[in-house]
Amino acid sequence: MFKKKAVVLLSGGLDSATTLAMARQQGFECYALTCVYGQRHGVEVESARRVAQALGVQSHQQIAIDLSLFGGSALTDSDVPVPRDRSPEAMSEKIPVTYVPARNTVFLSLALAWAEALGAYDLFIGVNAMDYSGYPDCRPAFIEAFERTANLATAAAVEGKGTFHIHTPIIAMTKSQIILEGMQLGLDYGLTHSCYDPDEQGRSCGHCDSCQLRLRGFDQAGLTDPAAYQDQ
Amino acid sequence: MFKKKAVVLLSGGLDSATTLAMARQQGFECYALTCVYGQRHGVEVESARRVAQALGVQSHQQIAIDLSLFGGSALTDSDVPVPRDRSPEAMSEKIPVTYVPARNTVFLSLALAWAEALGAYDLFIGVNAMDYSGYPDCRPAFIEAFERTANLATAAAVEGKGTFHIHTPIIAMTKSQIILEGMQLGLDYGLTHSCYDPDEQGRSCGHCDSCQLRLRGFDQAGLTDPAAYQDQ
Repeated sequence: MFKKKAVVLLSGGLDSATTLAMARQQGFECYALTCVYGQRHGVEVESARRVAQALGVQSHQQIAIDLSLFGGSALTDSDVPVPRDRSPEAMSEKIPVTYVPARNTVFLSLALAWAEALGAYDLFIGVNAMDYSGYPDCRPAFIEAFERTANLATAAAVEGKGTFHIHTPIIAMTKSQIILEGMQLGLDYGLTHSCYDPDEQGRSCGHCDSCQLRLRGFDQAGLTDPAAYQDQ
Repeated sequence: MFKKKAVVLLSGGLDSATTLAMARQQGFECYALTCVYGQRHGVEVESARRVAQALGVQSHQQIAIDLSLFGGSALTDSDVPVPRDRSPEAMSEKIPVTYVPARNTVFLSLALAWAEALGAYDLFIGVNAMDYSGYPDCRPAFIEAFERTANLATAAAVEGKGTFHIHTPIIAMTKSQIILEGMQLGLDYGLTHSCYDPDEQGRSCGHCDSCQLRLRGFDQAGLTDPAAYQDQ
């Protein structure tokens, strides 16, 4: 049976792994793209490789792009400390220092480049507008604007070969809903990695925003997170 | 005097060098960004360095991003020959094989990332809609869609710190008009490089679309191209 191709952005985190599982469930032949962008938590990239393998993607491409050259984020700049033990209210107060300037625009443009070369018209990105209402490039308005740009930017779209769609299947789900969805699809969350500030053995800190959102999600889903934490 | 910052995409070619000269003339403090994307004509990058130095930019950043991983273009794939000696009519017939999938979307997203980190709201790109009517990502509709996306994508725009503008000063100029403008601004076109298929010494072939457009532009301007050609 002929399957439609999709390019799926895969960071190795919980959200993007679930997004990949959902894309596969929808019947797409998946091409996973991992952007190695100078993030301090490089252990994510190894998680991406394991998730891609476990979910049986058609191809997994890693592309290096050193956004730390530009600075401006705690995720790429080791001089900016990663916040710890913040309340949900504090997290949603303003745009966090872990925001990487224009990151999802860069990621989507790379996914678009590969998609056009592959003849794929479906792009999946695991953005979520619930966790951080402050991340501008996780909102539906941004995704719609990028989709419109993609359909003007490319030879494929202009020549009428196809119309690009940006899929955001988890954009309006809570963390516990995402986890329950992934579990139903057989995803092993022990393969994924979410921590912004892991130790040298790749164990999660349990205190950064990302760990806290993840732990709360498992808790609300009535499940135990299989990831390795430093204080276990 | 306080100068507004601008990020200027600088390939090392004639168009982007002129665009940089025009941005400087407009009073911007210029930050030049060169994307090293796996193009076969790497000599362009050395030209970018020389142009940036000659025009006295505030900073020149080179960012590596290997678009040849994705394939799909004669500029990044050595198995696809670069067309030679095509007529102007043949060039504008359809999208050429030298089109790189989603290239300007990738470039602008990287420029946006740097601009946001710098606190710059002005981006310059030397796209031209006259030479190749077929390049979709050189058209005003694409630029407008990207600008709209930029203003939704970024913390800077969402927090009301500024509004991004994508400047395309040469978009509607002919090649000879571009050259005359650059000459008036004192630009040395001997520093620039346009050829898609240079030899090992970095000399231009004189036969690819880009050389032909450049040579015709100098001819129509009544000037001699100072670049080095193989058959000279």
